[in-house]
Amino acid sequence: MRVYFDTFEVSTSKRVDLINITERVEEAVEKSGVMDGICLVFAPHATAAVIVNEDERGLKEDIVRWLEENFPRDGKWRHNLVDDNASAHLASAFTSSCRVFPVKGGGLVRGTWQSIFLVEMDGPRRRRVVVEVLGV
Amino acid sequence: MRVYFDTFEVSTSKRVDLINITERVEEAVEKSGVMDGICLVFAPHATAAVIVNEDERGLKEDIVRWLEENFPRDGKWRHNLVDDNASAHLASAFTSSCRVFPVKGGGLVRGTWQSIFLVEMDGPRRRRVVVEVLGV
Amino acid sequence: MRVYFDTFEVSTSKRVDLINITERVEEAVEKSGVMDGICLVFAPHATAAVIVNEDERGLKEDIVRWLEENFPRDGKWRHNLVDDNASAHLASAFTSSCRVFPVKGGGLVRGTWQSIFLVEMDGPRRRRVVVEVLGV
Repeated sequence: MRVYFDTFEVSTSKRVDLINITERVEEAVEKSGVMDGICLVFAPHATAAVIVNEDERGLKEDIVRWLEENFPRDGKWRHNLVDDNASAHLASAFTSSCRVFPVKGGGLVRGTWQSIFLVEMDGPRRRRVVVEVLGV
Repeated sequence: MRVYFDTFEVSTSKRVDLINITERVEEAVEKSGVMDGICLVFAPHATAAVIVNEDERGLKEDIVRWLEENFPRDGKWRHNLVDDNASAHLASAFTSSCRVFPVKGGGLVRGTWQSIFLVEMDGPRRRRVVVEVLGV
Repeated sequence: MRVYFDTFEVSTSKRVDLINITERVEEAVEKSGVMDGICLVFAPHATAAVIVNEDERGLKEDIVRWLEENFPRDGKWRHNLVDDNASAHLASAFTSSCRVFPVKGGGLVRGTWQSIFLVEMDGPRRRRVVVEVLGV
């Protein structure tokens, strides 16, 4: 059994931002040498997340808008008494910082319109992404 | 180590729809021969998702209503300038297209009321589901 | 390859409640003897979930409030015709009962502010948590 890790950083440029990391994830799968197994994409952050969807400019704006409306920054959150980023914590908790994909025949299994994004909710800043490929 | 894949299709009959796929997932676990490991249920689609909950008629209607209210079809989404299914993309991105279960003693670990559903958000159409069982 | 299971119970004390289970999860990783692999944290319940975020008193209140506002108990849900906990089912379905973490060098990979919580949505009661560690 093989277990392969790739950890990389991305720079985000807005408070709420989406960074397409699909290519980096597919490179890790290739380098891993795993033919059949799984690929875990994990953000080790409490104010970021990982999502999967289409990389279309308008849709990315919709995703940001949905996050801002459903986790409003001015929501009178109690965490803002000790910090100013409660909305980012809430968005991260409910969006989740992990996504898992099948790896089959040496490649990542994903739909045509399934791109992988690191979702920044408290940027701009540097973020880490851990990609783990496990299998045979 | 064993890695077993089963890919199957389901037909959805409404724009937003839930299809119980628990039996198909449990069959895959059985056929895999894996005694202890994990089972990944994955929808390779950007306008569908996988969820886990009780298969009760009223609750399934509540789930559909929650999706329609929280990802409204007429939400003035920018993605609708190039397509007409932004709400389905948003619902898929935030609901997630993967769920992972323990496999123990040759069986799927799940609670009594935990059925597994493919969630259609842009139907009706045919959808694929990938079930992967990995372990010993 | 090693596959290690640890199942434990927690007591919740309110209808919506968060129980920090990080230490229990890290103990399982240690006991498993797995150096490199994954850790699945799974709640076998249809009215509970698992989330990852900061263990700060105000934030935990914000998380409870977000759940109560977004999955309102008095939402005229149809499932409440047969039971009284539709909001808990909805919250569980969309929050998800699984989270997956990398295990590297014998330890759980998680960010500084990433604590792991069992989220009770229909308490108080006893809940089970399944921790599975799989790897080499």
